[in-house]
Amino acid sequence: MRTKYARKLIAVALLFVWIGALAGSPAQAQTMDPLPSWNEGAAKQSIVDFVKRVTTPGSKDFVPVPERIAVFDNDGTLWCEQPVPVQLYFALDRVKALAPQHPEWKTQEPFASLLKGDVQTALAGGDHALLELIMATHTGMTTVEFEQIVKDWIGTAKHPKTGKRFIDMTYQPMLEVLAYLRANGFKNFIVSGGGIEFMRPWTEQVYGIPPEQVVGSSIKTKFEMRDGKPVLVRLPELNFNDDKGGKPVGINQHIGRRPIAAFGNSVGDQQMLEYTQGGSGARFELLVLHDDAAREYAYGPARGLPDVKLGFFTPALDEHAKKDGWTVVSMKNDWKRVFAFEK
Amino acid sequence: MRTKYARKLIAVALLFVWIGALAGSPAQAQTMDPLPSWNEGAAKQSIVDFVKRVTTPGSKDFVPVPERIAVFDNDGTLWCEQPVPVQLYFALDRVKALAPQHPEWKTQEPFASLLKGDVQTALAGGDHALLELIMATHTGMTTVEFEQIVKDWIGTAKHPKTGKRFIDMTYQPMLEVLAYLRANGFKNFIVSGGGIEFMRPWTEQVYGIPPEQVVGSSIKTKFEMRDGKPVLVRLPELNFNDDKGGKPVGINQHIGRRPIAAFGNSVGDQQMLEYTQGGSGARFELLVLHDDAAREYAYGPARGLPDVKLGFFTPALDEHAKKDGWTVVSMKNDWKRVFAFEK
Repeated sequence: MRTKYARKLIAVALLFVWIGALAGSPAQAQTMDPLPSWNEGAAKQSIVDFVKRVTTPGSKDFVPVPERIAVFDNDGTLWCEQPVPVQLYFALDRVKALAPQHPEWKTQEPFASLLKGDVQTALAGGDHALLELIMATHTGMTTVEFEQIVKDWIGTAKHPKTGKRFIDMTYQPMLEVLAYLRANGFKNFIVSGGGIEFMRPWTEQVYGIPPEQVVGSSIKTKFEMRDGKPVLVRLPELNFNDDKGGKPVGINQHIGRRPIAAFGNSVGDQQMLEYTQGGSGARFELLVLHDDAAREYAYGPARGLPDVKLGFFTPALDEHAKKDGWTVVSMKNDWKRVFAFEK
Repeated sequence: MRTKYARKLIAVALLFVWIGALAGSPAQAQTMDPLPSWNEGAAKQSIVDFVKRVTTPGSKDFVPVPERIAVFDNDGTLWCEQPVPVQLYFALDRVKALAPQHPEWKTQEPFASLLKGDVQTALAGGDHALLELIMATHTGMTTVEFEQIVKDWIGTAKHPKTGKRFIDMTYQPMLEVLAYLRANGFKNFIVSGGGIEFMRPWTEQVYGIPPEQVVGSSIKTKFEMRDGKPVLVRLPELNFNDDKGGKPVGINQHIGRRPIAAFGNSVGDQQMLEYTQGGSGARFELLVLHDDAAREYAYGPARGLPDVKLGFFTPALDEHAKKDGWTVVSMKNDWKRVFAFEK
């Protein structure tokens, strides 16, 4: 047993020698750009500079590994959120699936409009309509049942414009940032206004982020025994709204450390970036600006970009970023590719 | 730069070769008992057997590393909770420190009795008195300020009977379990009825458990700018009670996976153990029974042990453990040492 174990360790050791030799070869070194989908420029450089500063031993900005916490908004920061956030498509499909059990929905808003395919009218009811929609489609089942419903849906659900699966509409340059930070000892967390249990079933596969590193909005759950089995039942009651000032609260609740890097794209992320910047030592804040109508969507309303109502990069946020030295990424200019499926 | 990196990797590789050689030596193998403070017996064996089953590749019970989640209650499971839980001593010291700013406390319960040193009368008010005490002593400041208050206190605060620091009154056998599981790819979480922000400032140092792996009871916090700085202010309002049925809820909220191993010592942990056992595949549940008046405390009230009111190993829990095959640890019989400071 011991000897077998020893042989394994020696094999691993030889692998390391081999990797070490590779890493030392100049030919190999040229291919080591950690952010190949980023154009050279100030945005890319700001990321690389920050990572070097906090990871160089002896540097005055050096940060020990356990404190290398990075937080990422999801919708519009890691994946496409237009024409409406993905979770809303999920809710719509749930309404269709559940409609036979709810004949009253034929005349009851927001369901009636949704069932006719009229999303705009359905959402005219604002937050109240949205909350009602979420409660009707996301609750009543156990957490295990809900996880399976999400998994089944996300595996096949497709974007209405591109026909690609939503999980293939993640931003390749941001996936590279996630991998780059991880390779440099960072622990990446998602901190999203989206539902925590809507994200967890697929974030590990898609982003390499395990469930315990996902923070999001949530509903209340209740422990009970069903048919002699211990389950958590999802209740139609909001537990936590992980948006705006809620994001630092969620970060503190789940992580218990102040992040040293934060990535977002909207006014919902402003407080998260402020909170991150408010710590001592080196910090990094980045906002993605959606200014690429050809490859993705163009919306602001900052810098004369269209105001899509669900959009959120306001002129005030733009000013704020400038004043506080936050990196603003132009998808159009800073990204070589937006999606992995592009040639 | 590259060459330096290569040299480092080769150095690491050589270290592996050396460790591999060591692991292969039979003399070394004898010293590898992962749980040296445990007496040989069914309890110790059940832990070792479980770890072997879930970590042996090819075994039908094999569990991939990311799913190796273990949860630990804190008070009475990882450290001493008698004669009253440590956090209560903290609250008492806070009352004394804050008393000059609160002349009304001289006549107002539970503060009046506390200031006279009469804890029993103070706590006669039950949960209501306890909640009032917590709110008066744990809120109003920022999270950063509170963290510093806890750090300052925990560094020196001592147990009234042993005169040892509370952080030295952790159970040596349980520290070994934490290390053993960690060495086998487990991620250990604390899931305690105690305050999440009371534990986080010291769990990494004491248990090797980082803040993001601590789940506990909490109060609400609010993001705001104070003197131009982004802070979270602690509000006098309960956010979450992480006890009994709350523990599975807290586990789901923070971890998002069902644990495969759970460790507790009281009725407050029953649902956590049930929830853990309710998953498919190999599971492990353990309860610590405090039956060692000489080295620690003896309380139940199961098995004729004294009923200390704040104690919690009831006869019903004992029955439950037996029926469901949970390991019950007798501190007296199963532990060679209770505390590290013992000879």
